[in-house]
Amino acid sequence: MGMITLTSDLGYKDFYLAAVKGSIVTQLPNTQIIDISHSVAPFNIAQGAFLFRNAFPHFPRRTVHILGVNCDYSNNPEFLALAYREHYLLGPDNGIFSLICEEFPEKLVKINLNRETKFPHFALLDVLVPCACHLAAGGTLNTLGDDQKTWIQKMDLKPVMGPGFIRGTVIYIDEYQNVITNITRKHFEERIKGRFEIRFKRNETINKISYHYGEVPEGEKLSLFGISEHLEIAINKGKASGLLGLRMDDTIQIDYEEVS
Amino acid sequence: MGMITLTSDLGYKDFYLAAVKGSIVTQLPNTQIIDISHSVAPFNIAQGAFLFRNAFPHFPRRTVHILGVNCDYSNNPEFLALAYREHYLLGPDNGIFSLICEEFPEKLVKINLNRETKFPHFALLDVLVPCACHLAAGGTLNTLGDDQKTWIQKMDLKPVMGPGFIRGTVIYIDEYQNVITNITRKHFEERIKGRFEIRFKRNETINKISYHYGEVPEGEKLSLFGISEHLEIAINKGKASGLLGLRMDDTIQIDYEEVS
Amino acid sequence: MGMITLTSDLGYKDFYLAAVKGSIVTQLPNTQIIDISHSVAPFNIAQGAFLFRNAFPHFPRRTVHILGVNCDYSNNPEFLALAYREHYLLGPDNGIFSLICEEFPEKLVKINLNRETKFPHFALLDVLVPCACHLAAGGTLNTLGDDQKTWIQKMDLKPVMGPGFIRGTVIYIDEYQNVITNITRKHFEERIKGRFEIRFKRNETINKISYHYGEVPEGEKLSLFGISEHLEIAINKGKASGLLGLRMDDTIQIDYEEVS
Repeated sequence: MGMITLTSDLGYKDFYLAAVKGSIVTQLPNTQIIDISHSVAPFNIAQGAFLFRNAFPHFPRRTVHILGVNCDYSNNPEFLALAYREHYLLGPDNGIFSLICEEFPEKLVKINLNRETKFPHFALLDVLVPCACHLAAGGTLNTLGDDQKTWIQKMDLKPVMGPGFIRGTVIYIDEYQNVITNITRKHFEERIKGRFEIRFKRNETINKISYHYGEVPEGEKLSLFGISEHLEIAINKGKASGLLGLRMDDTIQIDYEEVS
Repeated sequence: MGMITLTSDLGYKDFYLAAVKGSIVTQLPNTQIIDISHSVAPFNIAQGAFLFRNAFPHFPRRTVHILGVNCDYSNNPEFLALAYREHYLLGPDNGIFSLICEEFPEKLVKINLNRETKFPHFALLDVLVPCACHLAAGGTLNTLGDDQKTWIQKMDLKPVMGPGFIRGTVIYIDEYQNVITNITRKHFEERIKGRFEIRFKRNETINKISYHYGEVPEGEKLSLFGISEHLEIAINKGKASGLLGLRMDDTIQIDYEEVS
Repeated sequence: MGMITLTSDLGYKDFYLAAVKGSIVTQLPNTQIIDISHSVAPFNIAQGAFLFRNAFPHFPRRTVHILGVNCDYSNNPEFLALAYREHYLLGPDNGIFSLICEEFPEKLVKINLNRETKFPHFALLDVLVPCACHLAAGGTLNTLGDDQKTWIQKMDLKPVMGPGFIRGTVIYIDEYQNVITNITRKHFEERIKGRFEIRFKRNETINKISYHYGEVPEGEKLSLFGISEHLEIAINKGKASGLLGLRMDDTIQIDYEEVS
């Protein structure tokens, strides 16, 4: 039984996602289909990449992953299939893969299937599903197209590093309203050896990294490295985004003592 | 392994849907269950029919589909099982099937199972799940009840056709806020051979049918036939419903040049 | 093929739930995973217990159920595994099991696995998933830890009973906006033999228990025992919570004639 995961901006209420799943089980009966998320903000490849990057390593090797974020013919006339860290990834060549992959994939092909343009706006169904079923059934990437050395490159918004400061940005707010920044544990640990102060709007400051949400009293703010290994501003048993007024794209700055 | 799909107004947060799925796997272990949508607006059979009609053809033949929209004993004392285009459909006799099926089904039976009224408000579980499992296990419609020649008939809201105009209605707004009307490609192509103008609120007009969302600049409005083959008003990478103020049941009129 | 259900406050949009599912299928391929609900309000074990209690009896015996509500190391350093009514239940020792189980479980062990603290905030993944896969694969509770005679005890909010009255509380509002109270059919039938009046805010009263939503005209309020066997205030084809102004934790009082 093959396994296919789906990550998209299709949402859950419409018939589009069901059409995709129906096509998969028609083409490859008994496939196990697992949703990663379909609540990616429409067309937001950075958000789709963030969610996918943190989810896919938990799946078995050789799982086939369809990435259907900002996926239509008009914007992205090309579709790619990748072998990356022993997983298969399929999606439009719109830059999402450059945001997901830390190194160039083991193999990258440009999909060269005879495209039935039955649904001109639904490449996810017309192009990606047949390729995913082919791979999930044990087929090879070579059958899908020719090797490729390049893809569309998008840059992740990186934190700005300066003398004694790291200035990051809010990149995601989760269901608990934890506020996730683009500052990773690696950024932090490479630079910060002594005292520091995390500053964000309304003159709020935190000068400690917690290990658990429960380390501070209920209702108190804290900062920790979340499951994604990104720096997170949270409130123990509370909703940090709403209560602290922190929104997507807001700035978080860490000022630190430089140790020579 | 049998396959059963579910379309309902049950939503995702309560325990009702889980009770349905648990009952299915208790009665027929290893059934593959696929959700079509459970976000149908409560009791809205027209919306349920629209979503289902566009999703089910993508599933394998002989799939069993449960339709649990506006489904309770009090309103719909009868339940139907259908063979339609080589799929099995099960649901209350509340008019939803007349909105789904373009022709009368191959076979239609009134469900005549000994109904355990354990949950007087949960016919979906008590009546439809056992019948669905029976069919998914290879059982026949004849076992479920007697042939029937009629059902409750509901009329879809059709566009009004007049000399030089088609006046349609917004019937669905999808997750991208694309605005879907009840004007189909067939309605359009049968009548419109020359110039036309699509008009809707705030004096907005469009006089072209696009093939792709990306044919116009980002943020611009456009019109196209969507995956459902219905005329859709959209904004490239934008939210048409909110930005254009188009809501459910609003009017869209196409004025066209009559070619003799 | 094993079966595992998931009940949590993780929500659907983040990558956390996908990480859990990926871990399950990595550790026990071909497991059937069924979501009970992930829309439990964050940290709300009473709501999680209510939803789970009503859903799990519909699943096959020996199903493994993971309860991931308010589940992190810091607050709940202990994790339990139970055999209860021939189902397996796994979750943090935070009181949720005392709210679910009507009698003490057949067997209760404190989980004693070597905990990899890879994700200090994600015990659901690190601790509960491996134990669930062990049980779903046919393993025993004895392997997971030592027998235990106690757990953290939480009290459900019970209705107040007085001479001629039962005073209950709104404990859940479902997707249809039916208003569910903590007054059960048992509470009602044990005490009320004659006339009664259900009273709630804005001087609304109901003095009849309906069997079906459709027993009153559309738009009219009614009261019935819902699928959970709890007293429910509803509006036929309408949204009782919004229209009647009934919210979580509001009071519903039944005044009744005492029959001697």
